[in-house]
Amino acid sequence: MKSWRPDRESYIPLYLQIEQHIKEKILHGEWTIGTKIPSQRKLAEELQVNRSTVTAAIDELIAQGLLEGKRGGGTKVVNNTWSMMAAAKPLDWTAYVTSGSHQPNSALIQAINQNEPRPDLIRLGTGELSQELLPEQETAELFREAGTNIFALGYEEPKGSLQLRQSVAEHLKTKGIHASPASIVIVSGALQALQLISIGLLKPNSVMLTENPSYLHSLRVFQSAGVTLKGVPMDENGIKTDLLPAYRRQYEAGLLYTIPSFHNPAGTVMSLKRRKELIALARNHRLPVIEDDAYGDLWIDKEPPPPLKSMDGEGNVLYIGTLSKTVSPGLRIGWVVAPERVADRLADIKMQTDYGSSALSQWAACQWLSSGRYEKRLLRLRKELKIRRDAALRFLERYAGDIAEWRVPEGGFYIWVTFHQAFAVQTFFTRALDAGVLINPGALYLPEDRKSLRLSYSYASLPDLEKGIQTIADIARRFV
Amino acid sequence: MKSWRPDRESYIPLYLQIEQHIKEKILHGEWTIGTKIPSQRKLAEELQVNRSTVTAAIDELIAQGLLEGKRGGGTKVVNNTWSMMAAAKPLDWTAYVTSGSHQPNSALIQAINQNEPRPDLIRLGTGELSQELLPEQETAELFREAGTNIFALGYEEPKGSLQLRQSVAEHLKTKGIHASPASIVIVSGALQALQLISIGLLKPNSVMLTENPSYLHSLRVFQSAGVTLKGVPMDENGIKTDLLPAYRRQYEAGLLYTIPSFHNPAGTVMSLKRRKELIALARNHRLPVIEDDAYGDLWIDKEPPPPLKSMDGEGNVLYIGTLSKTVSPGLRIGWVVAPERVADRLADIKMQTDYGSSALSQWAACQWLSSGRYEKRLLRLRKELKIRRDAALRFLERYAGDIAEWRVPEGGFYIWVTFHQAFAVQTFFTRALDAGVLINPGALYLPEDRKSLRLSYSYASLPDLEKGIQTIADIARRFV
Repeated sequence: MKSWRPDRESYIPLYLQIEQHIKEKILHGEWTIGTKIPSQRKLAEELQVNRSTVTAAIDELIAQGLLEGKRGGGTKVVNNTWSMMAAAKPLDWTAYVTSGSHQPNSALIQAINQNEPRPDLIRLGTGELSQELLPEQETAELFREAGTNIFALGYEEPKGSLQLRQSVAEHLKTKGIHASPASIVIVSGALQALQLISIGLLKPNSVMLTENPSYLHSLRVFQSAGVTLKGVPMDENGIKTDLLPAYRRQYEAGLLYTIPSFHNPAGTVMSLKRRKELIALARNHRLPVIEDDAYGDLWIDKEPPPPLKSMDGEGNVLYIGTLSKTVSPGLRIGWVVAPERVADRLADIKMQTDYGSSALSQWAACQWLSSGRYEKRLLRLRKELKIRRDAALRFLERYAGDIAEWRVPEGGFYIWVTFHQAFAVQTFFTRALDAGVLINPGALYLPEDRKSLRLSYSYASLPDLEKGIQTIADIARRFV
Repeated sequence: MKSWRPDRESYIPLYLQIEQHIKEKILHGEWTIGTKIPSQRKLAEELQVNRSTVTAAIDELIAQGLLEGKRGGGTKVVNNTWSMMAAAKPLDWTAYVTSGSHQPNSALIQAINQNEPRPDLIRLGTGELSQELLPEQETAELFREAGTNIFALGYEEPKGSLQLRQSVAEHLKTKGIHASPASIVIVSGALQALQLISIGLLKPNSVMLTENPSYLHSLRVFQSAGVTLKGVPMDENGIKTDLLPAYRRQYEAGLLYTIPSFHNPAGTVMSLKRRKELIALARNHRLPVIEDDAYGDLWIDKEPPPPLKSMDGEGNVLYIGTLSKTVSPGLRIGWVVAPERVADRLADIKMQTDYGSSALSQWAACQWLSSGRYEKRLLRLRKELKIRRDAALRFLERYAGDIAEWRVPEGGFYIWVTFHQAFAVQTFFTRALDAGVLINPGALYLPEDRKSLRLSYSYASLPDLEKGIQTIADIARRFV
């Protein structure tokens, strides 16, 4: 219903226009039998009419036998013009929508996804660059400067555009990672890399270790592949490597997922010592490691230690990089570095999943990396992120200094804010939403958490950051 | 090994350069322990050196204990510098590469994928537009003409860019399909639509009906989700609808997949009568239908009957469209039209899989559809395809008229050529490859087929079409 609204200039009464509109949705099979239609309150809001107008339209449709309303149970489509003619019981999609091996997103994540397009909300949890930090002008320039016939528009090689893989290989050298194009697979963002690993490399019922808290808990990608996540405690130096052998043994874990630099959501940086320990563990315990380096280039105070992959002499580390956090999520371009056999397997599955990533995006990504624009952009971005982080820390101190604590992140997007008192997650989320602030509760990243939020300083404007943090602190103060 | 070659100007002997290169691949974990390295013949070809040079390098590495060669069994990596130092047995990726729920592509498909980048081959089976038919100039123009700040580079709504969905809705109206943006999900090509359906809507162990032969047999997407395919016979009017109720019952089939217009690989068009019967069957037997309309706009002689979706009053049909065959596969843009609840579910899974399609591609697709360029392009493309199809038919008549038969396709890319005599599929494929022609045997689309090829006239140039068809006919004549 998002785009349509009744025409107030029309001579047809509003309620009749709405009745007709809903009838068409039913007739065209967009609202199939069994569909629960939005509440009258919601419809009135969306269509910008009085609730009584919506009620009149719906009463009409109930009288015609197309809808059925239950007290307190909402209104459902029970018939359509076809089924009223035909004798057969119509197809009910419910069984299909609830089938499929892939799990739906958690209700909280779905609520966040649904509310993200609302322009009236302050988004304190969003792990993206704010619109004004996205390089729309530069990207448009890239295309304008380019001549014609510059990009291939056909299907690419299974591992992705060779030129882009060569640029990625050059880029990785600056981090001490030596990878030839044959060991690089281009993917549509880091999330797709995880998806390909989950269905391509892991047995159902395998166990994956990760930090506690972890971004992975907010996804369903591994769980849907039948993989169980086990959280390993972390401290200010990253995952506690001394606990890993025991976790590995106890859960017969097949893999470890880690974000060593500017952890999502904890914001921490794994120390060099821990990194070396982890590499030794991977070797001695034959534990493959997925290193997610989405934020590594976004340091604010000082460069993080070198990636695990740069110390990996045996191909025990699968390395994931992406342009989503540094250049633009809309590009949907990332990469995996893996032993060639693993890269071959991932590329084969990628081909079966979507026949490769957008050629336009691959071309643009290659331009970004090979033109020097990427490095230049990072310099500016780090300054912007510093301003935002420092402001967020100031606001936290000012409004929540007495009721919460946090660690200063040295880069990335996130501050993990922990309140002194526990709260009811859903209530806190709803109260914040009602007050115009969209938050990402810590429970998304650590299911048992009742005290934390992942606060992102990359998205909201400085005034919104202040207002949002003040609002959240007020709610915490009153209800916690 | 694709990009690297030894430096002939260097004072370091070629064999030492090669030894060093292989050592680095092992050291950096690109060739892990257990990796079977390419044959000496293949390496010599790739590196453009004599085979004796490769042998010298490999003998050296065997002597150092890094490689191990078995008579007739190829050469394997058995050690690396790390493992020679450490006592522990190194990680073997084999178990991982062969795990994962997703099946690898069939060996034949993998062989085709691997040989497709070879510029020396005539590709008679490739289901893509030839490079010269791709609109590289127009796409570059789109971007040049556009000002700055025209495209959003952030993440899009779960269902994709609203503007694009509105353009798709307008485009669909010309086919008699009425869909609001809320019932449209933007995907990265038709294959991704199938992937999302397979993991989002289908129970493992469900059965899907489809035409015999079918493009679906060349994919692993449904099989990997645990879905069994059952082929239903087709004739010149499409799938035999009179058999469907029995198939539905016998196999307890949960879904039907069909390409009604310019079938892949059979080239047929489902008649209007059959379409109406199918829609009635879907209603009366509550059988959801996936309509893949990738080729519908590519008619040559006359427009096909309207899509099934245009006759679907109850939301029993999931409709798939794509720009891959008409504009460019590199865009990776397609769409699914579905009842809203189903669209919501598919969009949720899409978000979990790759966070949406490339914003650049979505922007370009929107420009194509809304600027009138798409319709203009179709007019030209239909003429080009007619020239190619007619030429292919002439060449078939000339070189294989006495040993094979085929039906004239009224549009799309494919002629299903059936030889009078059966052949050994792998032998035929290999002989054609040795003669420089890459073919898609019918067995890819109908596992028990031993007589047919899917001949595509969209990719090879006219001279290549002639030479390729002549070569294939010669092989068939000699060996069949």
